[in-house]
Amino acid sequence: MPNIANDPKRKSWIEVPNDCDFPIQNIPFGVFITKNDDITIGTRIGNTAIDMGALQRLHYFDGIELTDDMFMQDTLNDFISDGKKTWRLVRNRLAELFDAENPKLRDNKEHRDIILFDVSEIEMLLPVQIGDYTDFYSSKEHATNVGKMFRDPENALLPNWLHIPVGYHGRSSTIVPSGVPVRRPNGQTLPAGETQPIFGPSKLVDFELETAFITTDANLMGEPIPVAEAEDYIFGMVLFNDWSARDIQKWEYVPLGPFLAKNFASSISPWIVTLDALEPFRVKSPEQNPKPFPYLQQEGEHAFDINLQVAIQPENEVETVVSNSNFKYMYWTMSQQLAHHTVNGCRVNSGDMMGSGTISGPTEDSFGSMLELTWGGKNPIKMNDGSERKFINDNDTVIIRGYCDNGETRLGFGECSSKLLPAVEIK
Amino acid sequence: MPNIANDPKRKSWIEVPNDCDFPIQNIPFGVFITKNDDITIGTRIGNTAIDMGALQRLHYFDGIELTDDMFMQDTLNDFISDGKKTWRLVRNRLAELFDAENPKLRDNKEHRDIILFDVSEIEMLLPVQIGDYTDFYSSKEHATNVGKMFRDPENALLPNWLHIPVGYHGRSSTIVPSGVPVRRPNGQTLPAGETQPIFGPSKLVDFELETAFITTDANLMGEPIPVAEAEDYIFGMVLFNDWSARDIQKWEYVPLGPFLAKNFASSISPWIVTLDALEPFRVKSPEQNPKPFPYLQQEGEHAFDINLQVAIQPENEVETVVSNSNFKYMYWTMSQQLAHHTVNGCRVNSGDMMGSGTISGPTEDSFGSMLELTWGGKNPIKMNDGSERKFINDNDTVIIRGYCDNGETRLGFGECSSKLLPAVEIK
Repeated sequence: MPNIANDPKRKSWIEVPNDCDFPIQNIPFGVFITKNDDITIGTRIGNTAIDMGALQRLHYFDGIELTDDMFMQDTLNDFISDGKKTWRLVRNRLAELFDAENPKLRDNKEHRDIILFDVSEIEMLLPVQIGDYTDFYSSKEHATNVGKMFRDPENALLPNWLHIPVGYHGRSSTIVPSGVPVRRPNGQTLPAGETQPIFGPSKLVDFELETAFITTDANLMGEPIPVAEAEDYIFGMVLFNDWSARDIQKWEYVPLGPFLAKNFASSISPWIVTLDALEPFRVKSPEQNPKPFPYLQQEGEHAFDINLQVAIQPENEVETVVSNSNFKYMYWTMSQQLAHHTVNGCRVNSGDMMGSGTISGPTEDSFGSMLELTWGGKNPIKMNDGSERKFINDNDTVIIRGYCDNGETRLGFGECSSKLLPAVEIK
Repeated sequence: MPNIANDPKRKSWIEVPNDCDFPIQNIPFGVFITKNDDITIGTRIGNTAIDMGALQRLHYFDGIELTDDMFMQDTLNDFISDGKKTWRLVRNRLAELFDAENPKLRDNKEHRDIILFDVSEIEMLLPVQIGDYTDFYSSKEHATNVGKMFRDPENALLPNWLHIPVGYHGRSSTIVPSGVPVRRPNGQTLPAGETQPIFGPSKLVDFELETAFITTDANLMGEPIPVAEAEDYIFGMVLFNDWSARDIQKWEYVPLGPFLAKNFASSISPWIVTLDALEPFRVKSPEQNPKPFPYLQQEGEHAFDINLQVAIQPENEVETVVSNSNFKYMYWTMSQQLAHHTVNGCRVNSGDMMGSGTISGPTEDSFGSMLELTWGGKNPIKMNDGSERKFINDNDTVIIRGYCDNGETRLGFGECSSKLLPAVEIK
């Protein structure tokens, strides 16, 4: 099925500002509350949110095989379950419907009034009910930086790292959409040089610049997904801030991995940009040496050129951009991650989410966490408001942005923005 | 509200064989397919499965505030969300309805024919849609055994272990009910003395004897659950086999914890025994020294005296009991685990599951894994069929059983039984 929605020449009858993340070539999917308090599945062009539930009721999806209430739901899980062919049919239909040359909806004011909202009138919700959430650790630069800081600078990478897309399970119950504030966690930490832990608010709350992909039902339990098929089971991507409490992590993580240091909150951008929309931005991933096992070997271009940026905005102050990175630096691709995740027969469902791991580039200004940017707090960042940051302060807002631009098409993810509130008091 | 369902003197008009795990004092909750292919919520007395959806339709729950289809669902999540008061009202009603002296249903053959099934006529399903699954590591004997084997016998426990109920996130998508076979996983391992990993079926598949508890909606994100309230949010318990591939785990788990070594499968017993039913079996937990932080301190009896047993049955052979342990040995209690899990504001939902970690007792025959029972394979177990086991062989069935007996009441969990199938071939 041709992916006509990506036609770079298409223009929409909906106005799209310059450098907007949501041209008609994007057509992401999300879930929102309208100004009438209805929850619907929708998409976005420019600064206009489009109620796909209303579109379906008004028969704009007729001819595509869909359940009657497909877009009148509060999660995308069922739509994602329908698979790649349906995703593409729906995205193509939306491209045609909002094409500048198509009068059908353009010239129907009554329908437009029901279907279209200004994005300022809606509230974005989590786009999927996330079943299981896995986080990988697939940036070689990040793993190397952490290894240099906490282990042996000469042997920064652990022995398994070049063979395995290392990953671990996270908690889905505290994944929230952009805009929802998060709380500084309380927990146990071991002060430097001490042998007895103390209890209280974490002093080292950090962001982690990540992306995440959302899967469809991919396999039955016991069945591996071949790496060559893995991309067929990836619905799309979001920006992801894997909030981390470094001091809690350091004390708790041996031997079973991070737990309370991570599961207090993770934030995602609310519009899922489909893998179809990202197609024009494929690039080759870094060369892998040693060559991975056959179940991880792939030919062609499986990385994506996605510019990423992190800014910190102190309360009532201007923001400061602290990192500029790119998803293309990742050593392990999403398809390798998914093939590895299932090589043991682990089942993957619609709405599962898999984080990339912190995305650090090769230069110091492209690192994906304060831990790396300030090198463990040794080199504070000077902020535009005159203050300094080693980690994230109470009431700071962390904003992650991401976009692709190949000269023909520019599209992006919008923002993953969340404010860190002070810790609650615990008796 | 009195917990009258626990009355040890009550007898049921349904026959209960001697030493059956399901006397009328148990009244566990589960989900099953009837012989008519209907899915329903139900309970069990003796070898009789009771269709609670049918009971509701026939007005046997009238007077208890329930949604109209509460028991006509395929998971217990909504019922669990209703909270402890409702659980108790429903369990009390069932106790009265099946009391030997109550003729209401006893003498209504037409209703009995709709409501009651022999357990051989039904198929048990997963009782809840598990949102997030966490596994703890709370047996001091198990953590000590592992530490002795893999680290320093003189300092077997890691420094955080006595301060933290150490836990990590697992995968809910591959948790299956008793009876569903599981597959030996493929994966990467590092042979002893080698520097390069190999790929293939795990050679060291092990069981882990655990229990798990199921929670209700406990808190909002950001809100800790005080340890003194934690038990109010625990619906009940199941037996749990946390299948583990020791060789995959050893190679993959640094630095972020176990992943593919665990998420290929975990098995649970299908009847959730409520914390109310376990009330008569409370005992004191082991003394904690050093004293934990205030958020983990509790008075009274918060452990439960549950006898646990593991048997291995080779295909077409008699079984061999390889371990006899008890849940009361656990160093950290379930309420401490839940208080710790949420002290950072981590949200807990209805249907979340939390595993105890491997339950090992103080004696060599009470260890909760083959790893410990054979001390890393050094001391193979002699089986009743003449064979030997270091770990689990293809086509072995691992059976976990658990029951409580205080002299007045004996009740149990039934079985958590699952067969290990050979690995699939991967090109």
